[in-house]
Amino acid sequence: MKLEKMLVAMSFLAAVSLAHAGPATPGPSHGIAYPEGWQNWATIAVSHRVDNNTLRVILGNDIAVKAVRNGQTNPWPDGAILGKVVWKETRLSKWENAVGPAKFVHAEFMFKDSKKYAETAGWGWARWVGPEQKPFAKGAQVCTSCHAPVKDRDWVFTDPAFFPAAK
Amino acid sequence: MKLEKMLVAMSFLAAVSLAHAGPATPGPSHGIAYPEGWQNWATIAVSHRVDNNTLRVILGNDIAVKAVRNGQTNPWPDGAILGKVVWKETRLSKWENAVGPAKFVHAEFMFKDSKKYAETAGWGWARWVGPEQKPFAKGAQVCTSCHAPVKDRDWVFTDPAFFPAAK
Repeated sequence: MKLEKMLVAMSFLAAVSLAHAGPATPGPSHGIAYPEGWQNWATIAVSHRVDNNTLRVILGNDIAVKAVRNGQTNPWPDGAILGKVVWKETRLSKWENAVGPAKFVHAEFMFKDSKKYAETAGWGWARWVGPEQKPFAKGAQVCTSCHAPVKDRDWVFTDPAFFPAAK
Repeated sequence: MKLEKMLVAMSFLAAVSLAHAGPATPGPSHGIAYPEGWQNWATIAVSHRVDNNTLRVILGNDIAVKAVRNGQTNPWPDGAILGKVVWKETRLSKWENAVGPAKFVHAEFMFKDSKKYAETAGWGWARWVGPEQKPFAKGAQVCTSCHAPVKDRDWVFTDPAFFPAAK
C-alpha cells in the first residue's frame, strides 16, 4: 500500500496548493501578457467622462511614474506602462454632491516599446474586461483609431496630475 | 591657515549637501508628521465633487490597502493611513466630454490609531495645503465636524472601488 499512500499524499498536496494559488492570471490580450501587480501602481491622474458616466484612475509602472516626475513623457520611455482603470459612476450615498466608482468596467493598458510595437505607434495595446478580466481581442486598431487625435502627444490622452515632489 | 582651509572645505560640503537634498519635508499638521512616500501609495477610490468642481484620488498605505482587500474597513485597523489628493477640475483639451485634474488644492490624511487618537474618534487628522504643502493648523475639529455624518462608517466617506483581485 505504499504507492496508494503516496498517491493520497500527493492529491492532498495538490489540493492545498490549488487552495493557496489565488485567482489565476488572466490570459493575454493582443498577445500581451497581463501586467501583474498593476493594482499597486502609483497614480498619474484621474478623469471623469461625462458622456458615458465613467470615472477613471490612470496608473503607471515605475518607469512611467519616473518619466512623469522627470517630465519625460513625449515620447514616453521604452518600458513605460500606463494603465487606465474604468468604473461606472454612482452618486455617493453619504455625499450627494459627489460621484464615485460603482460597477467595474475594464482595465486597459499601453505598453511602450518603440521597436517591438513599431507597427502600432510604438505602443502595445491591451485591455481586460469586467471583474473577471476577460482578455479583449478585437484588435489594436480599435485602440489606435480612438487615440489618433493625440498622436502628437505620443498617443496619450492623459495630462499627468500635479503631485507635490516626492522626497 | 589650516583651520581656514578646513572651514572653506566644510562650507563647500554643506552647500553640495543642500543642493542634493531635494525639497525639505513639510512640517507637521496637528502634530502629525508628513507621511513620506504617499505619492506612491496604491489607489483605493476616486471621486468627483460637483459642488466645488474638484477631482480626488483616495490612496492608502500598505495597511489600509490590505484592509480594503480583506474587507476589514469598519473599523479600519490601527496603522492604516488614508490619503485624499484634491485638484480643481478642468475640461480635457483633447477630450471635450471629460474632466481631469488642474490646480492642486491639497493632500489630506486620516491616521488610524484607536488609542493615540482616542479623543478625535480614533483617527489623527492632517492636511497639507497647496503645491508648497503648507501644514494645515485650524484644528482637527474642522475635519471631524465634516466627517460626523459617517461616524457609523468609522468616520470614512470613501467606499473602496472594486479592483480585480491582485494575484
